[in-house]
Amino acid sequence: MSEKALIFGHKNPDTDSICSVLAYEALKKQLGENVEARRLGNLNKETEFVLNYFDVEAPKLLATVDPNAEGAENTERQKVILIDHNERIQSVDGLETAQITEVIDHHKFGEFSTFEPLMIRAEPVGCSSTILLTIYKENDLLPEKKMAGMMLSAIISDTLLFKSPTCTPRDVKAAEELAKIAGVDLEKYGMDMLIAGASFGDKSTKEIINMDMKEFEMGANKIAIAQVNTVNVAEILDQKEQYESTIQEQIESEGYDLFVFIITDILRSGSETIVLGKATDVFESAFDTKLDNNTAWLEGAVSRKKQFVPNLMEVSK
Amino acid sequence: MSEKALIFGHKNPDTDSICSVLAYEALKKQLGENVEARRLGNLNKETEFVLNYFDVEAPKLLATVDPNAEGAENTERQKVILIDHNERIQSVDGLETAQITEVIDHHKFGEFSTFEPLMIRAEPVGCSSTILLTIYKENDLLPEKKMAGMMLSAIISDTLLFKSPTCTPRDVKAAEELAKIAGVDLEKYGMDMLIAGASFGDKSTKEIINMDMKEFEMGANKIAIAQVNTVNVAEILDQKEQYESTIQEQIESEGYDLFVFIITDILRSGSETIVLGKATDVFESAFDTKLDNNTAWLEGAVSRKKQFVPNLMEVSK
Repeated sequence: MSEKALIFGHKNPDTDSICSVLAYEALKKQLGENVEARRLGNLNKETEFVLNYFDVEAPKLLATVDPNAEGAENTERQKVILIDHNERIQSVDGLETAQITEVIDHHKFGEFSTFEPLMIRAEPVGCSSTILLTIYKENDLLPEKKMAGMMLSAIISDTLLFKSPTCTPRDVKAAEELAKIAGVDLEKYGMDMLIAGASFGDKSTKEIINMDMKEFEMGANKIAIAQVNTVNVAEILDQKEQYESTIQEQIESEGYDLFVFIITDILRSGSETIVLGKATDVFESAFDTKLDNNTAWLEGAVSRKKQFVPNLMEVSK
Repeated sequence: MSEKALIFGHKNPDTDSICSVLAYEALKKQLGENVEARRLGNLNKETEFVLNYFDVEAPKLLATVDPNAEGAENTERQKVILIDHNERIQSVDGLETAQITEVIDHHKFGEFSTFEPLMIRAEPVGCSSTILLTIYKENDLLPEKKMAGMMLSAIISDTLLFKSPTCTPRDVKAAEELAKIAGVDLEKYGMDMLIAGASFGDKSTKEIINMDMKEFEMGANKIAIAQVNTVNVAEILDQKEQYESTIQEQIESEGYDLFVFIITDILRSGSETIVLGKATDVFESAFDTKLDNNTAWLEGAVSRKKQFVPNLMEVSK
């Protein structure tokens, strides 16, 4: 058993899955534990902005924890700490060979299994970092300035600056406290960060779709739900046909029954959706809507976790 | 959605699954929440001793949470809080229809799924009540005398008065603190309680086997692991043939591939085992032992959770 525990968030890491991992690594090291923060994929624009703003280095990429896989870093059973996810399908390759010693998460649980008892802190709050701040305090500690900046950014990102229905009063309170430690103006920094994240730069349609894509098994269906936040939905819709053909390719190569591409308008608090696959009726019934040329505008729907996933689960039972 | 949340432990409730449930109900009520403690089966002798000693009423039996089942108490989706377990196979009938809002547990996780984000506090300690004491303190509260007695009893029971390898320094510390509040001599009360629980009275072999029996799916095998604690192993072995035929009946009626009956000697810190089923080779390889006439003495093995289950899981991969 390797003694060092690796801490990481989900694949296609968002700001929470990078920044909470760094903050938990810092806390664990302060407590004298042997841990290392890692990431399961490339950084998105928003996270790049955050790391650059606070001058923090990104965690190293982790490809697999399977000791028998090509490119394996470990020779024995790897200890791992999962942040911001628990479902195997969203986690590192080879997870089934690892010892999960801790989970810190704010999502639903999906077929979660371990071989041993472990530490889990899951709470229905808006962001993993809100739970982390509680754990810091339980240890009579507070994050130092840069790590407070990491945690603040994770909360802003996950709650869309408190606009998401997943946001709880605890998230707001934590963010206010962290903004003070980080020495930033919460509203101004928050908008700058979200707009930086909402710019797609010179990304291809394929890159944009895969920026924040998660897979789910619901009933008999394998469903992909990709989400982007933007201040300019039209920019995406102008290239709708290109997006459709890219989505169609992924449906065919990955065998998805349904692909939901959510384009969330962070100023209007709603989402345009592009929906393809043989199970589009599941989507239509989940949202009581009719797709018009593969698209539907969903007023007020901005949260994959609290709105899209539960609605789709409900009709997939 | 029914507003009241039901709190319960696992089927075949042991002292932890009754007493921690009562203590958590008390805490939740102090916090103004609408909850009710329930139990999923009959009390064992040890738990009867505990409730009698502290003059506490047992929770009401709960048969199912499925709104469509016969004898259903709820008409809509029931909110539930799981204590001391998380695996569906050990939980209430109809769990898949319920909304799990919280889990407090100290076991491994097994195929645990929810539809929504939830609160989970899992820690690798010896007893659920040790976690509960932490939660009490986080709320700036302490259990009152009777509830301290419940929590103390749960810890003594789960750790076999600190002799089990599952026992951690936190369990010992919590028990010492709770014994003071409960106003009992820890060692004396502990031995009285364990001996009361170890007396089988006029129970049938079938009742004894089912006092604390749990089912597991490991690899392709459906495995039953029953455990009793005793100060008199010979009393059971004298009736070995009767136990074997009872176990054989349960193997046939429930389709178990392996049935492990653990008779733990609480004074000698080891267990006699009676093992039947078509997968006895799994047991032999898990414990590097040879069954002699269906039995094996396992020196130092007293914990189903920390010794029997992980060893069997390891060879079932």
